[in-house]
Amino acid sequence: MVATTLRSIKSLVPLLDRVLVQRVKAEAKTASGLFLPESSVKELNEARVLAVGPGGLDKDGKRLPMGVSQGDRVLIPQYGGAPVKVGEEEFTLFRDSEILAKINE
Amino acid sequence: MVATTLRSIKSLVPLLDRVLVQRVKAEAKTASGLFLPESSVKELNEARVLAVGPGGLDKDGKRLPMGVSQGDRVLIPQYGGAPVKVGEEEFTLFRDSEILAKINE
Amino acid sequence: MVATTLRSIKSLVPLLDRVLVQRVKAEAKTASGLFLPESSVKELNEARVLAVGPGGLDKDGKRLPMGVSQGDRVLIPQYGGAPVKVGEEEFTLFRDSEILAKINE
Amino acid sequence: MVATTLRSIKSLVPLLDRVLVQRVKAEAKTASGLFLPESSVKELNEARVLAVGPGGLDKDGKRLPMGVSQGDRVLIPQYGGAPVKVGEEEFTLFRDSEILAKINE
Amino acid sequence: MVATTLRSIKSLVPLLDRVLVQRVKAEAKTASGLFLPESSVKELNEARVLAVGPGGLDKDGKRLPMGVSQGDRVLIPQYGGAPVKVGEEEFTLFRDSEILAKINE
Amino acid sequence: MVATTLRSIKSLVPLLDRVLVQRVKAEAKTASGLFLPESSVKELNEARVLAVGPGGLDKDGKRLPMGVSQGDRVLIPQYGGAPVKVGEEEFTLFRDSEILAKINE
Amino acid sequence: MVATTLRSIKSLVPLLDRVLVQRVKAEAKTASGLFLPESSVKELNEARVLAVGPGGLDKDGKRLPMGVSQGDRVLIPQYGGAPVKVGEEEFTLFRDSEILAKINE
Repeated sequence: MVATTLRSIKSLVPLLDRVLVQRVKAEAKTASGLFLPESSVKELNEARVLAVGPGGLDKDGKRLPMGVSQGDRVLIPQYGGAPVKVGEEEFTLFRDSEILAKINE
Repeated sequence: MVATTLRSIKSLVPLLDRVLVQRVKAEAKTASGLFLPESSVKELNEARVLAVGPGGLDKDGKRLPMGVSQGDRVLIPQYGGAPVKVGEEEFTLFRDSEILAKINE
Repeated sequence: MVATTLRSIKSLVPLLDRVLVQRVKAEAKTASGLFLPESSVKELNEARVLAVGPGGLDKDGKRLPMGVSQGDRVLIPQYGGAPVKVGEEEFTLFRDSEILAKINE
Repeated sequence: MVATTLRSIKSLVPLLDRVLVQRVKAEAKTASGLFLPESSVKELNEARVLAVGPGGLDKDGKRLPMGVSQGDRVLIPQYGGAPVKVGEEEFTLFRDSEILAKINE
Repeated sequence: MVATTLRSIKSLVPLLDRVLVQRVKAEAKTASGLFLPESSVKELNEARVLAVGPGGLDKDGKRLPMGVSQGDRVLIPQYGGAPVKVGEEEFTLFRDSEILAKINE
Repeated sequence: MVATTLRSIKSLVPLLDRVLVQRVKAEAKTASGLFLPESSVKELNEARVLAVGPGGLDKDGKRLPMGVSQGDRVLIPQYGGAPVKVGEEEFTLFRDSEILAKINE
Repeated sequence: MVATTLRSIKSLVPLLDRVLVQRVKAEAKTASGLFLPESSVKELNEARVLAVGPGGLDKDGKRLPMGVSQGDRVLIPQYGGAPVKVGEEEFTLFRDSEILAKINE
């Protein structure tokens, strides 16, 4: 875990083609309102994009366009990415090309 | 398995050169209608393309054309791809260049 | 083995620079007509090209020419390639650059 | 640890796309002023940029722009980088593309 | 060993930058005419070029020139290359860039 | 260790982007003049540049500029480089891009 | 060891960017004329360039210039290169970029 003293995740400005996301939390209680033990809460691979970098550089130093934008709901890979912790909240930094798909729902 | 809260796989929009496919299910019953035990149901390497990304970027930031289109029936490799689960259904995301062949039948 | 429900291998259209081949079968009987036990039938590295893809893409998205054509008799490497099974017959998909040589005989 | 006889870290001029940073130290005492044992002081992944190189060379020998500048507060990866020791102080040299994000706080 | 049913090695047409060679056989008898046991016959790294491919493709799809020609006597590396067997004779396919040197003697 | 019969290290002319350096020796005696046992003499990662090559070649055969010059004091990585021995003295050859930083002191 | 039937090493014409060198032999006797046992004769990393190839090909098929010429005295790396034996003499083939430095003495 990449530990920080940040007061707010909003202070983080991703570099190059990095994408800062926060994983969508699976419900820890059932539909009828019962709280589930933590081990039965599935980890989801959906995330919300909080911030995106300006794009990587091609071989001539030009910026390559980013595939996702702030606010996008996205499908993220099961492994990889650099974890960041702000207070008790966890976030992840991916490269733009690692994001699998957008979710339009 | 990449778990999601998606209500429909149709909400998933692949990025770059990714291809969302659903494997064709092998028949779980014989021609005469008997149900086969699960272990004797062969896994098939045929799939239906549900959605395709806009294409990867070449070194100048231009989109490279995709080899397959939505609706195509394709031959997929035995290993690889990122699995996605929506409800009880399973899907897979491949890169366009990983798809082995189209099936015109 | 990549299992399929294909009725005919002719339905398979290779993508990019892939080449669909069928290995030439070594004779399972001697010149005098005796059938040989399977262990003494040598696996041959000759194959017939059944179908070829449109060619891989160069860095500008242009198709690179294929080295072999449908109908070619070719020398294939001992290892590698993606196996495909249609009914009881086996086929293999290679990349064009993996084919070692053409056989003009 | 890369040991040196440097009198001041200010004498160090990074080459190519290297970035000289100093890790932000986690407080070794509690809010109420008690000193914590060293094992409970978390290592932070924030750093201050002390100096940056002129940028790496692209394939034509042109300088690629740097993503961070002297004075920037940045998020650094958990592993990697070349450690440098000046007296009792520790510093690290990263490549520009290894720096995860800027911190604007 | 890549087994074939070829009647003649002359039927083999190397693809891309491949070079078909036949290793020069070390003498299996001494100067005075005595036959040496097989274990004392040294394997030589000289070969005769039997056929060459049309050349590999550069990034624009143009053929790169071959360094050796049919009939050349060459120095081949100790390991590597794809072995081919025609009848009882053995041949090897190398990439053009693997051939170490020409022998002008 | 690369052993040589060189009479002087000045005879060595690095090729391409190679940089010939000599490590700065850590003092083997204390400030008060006592000689330290060898095991307590720290290896330093500072070096003096004795000679530089003309620069590596870019993809068009043009020389890429060198980052360091003869006489520069530099920070070298802890591992890597090709060691050279002239008489009892040791030197190291690095690639230009391996040199971490210049020291201006 | 790459064994050959070459009568003279002069028959060997290196291909592409290869450099044929012969290692300088360390003296096997002391200054006072005593012969040393073989185990105490140090292997030297100096060599004489006997022949050079025409140069490797850049991505457009143009020859890249060679860094060393026939007759050059050079510093060679401790490991690597393809050994060649002509009679009882040993030679080595390196790629041009593996040669560490020229020796002007």
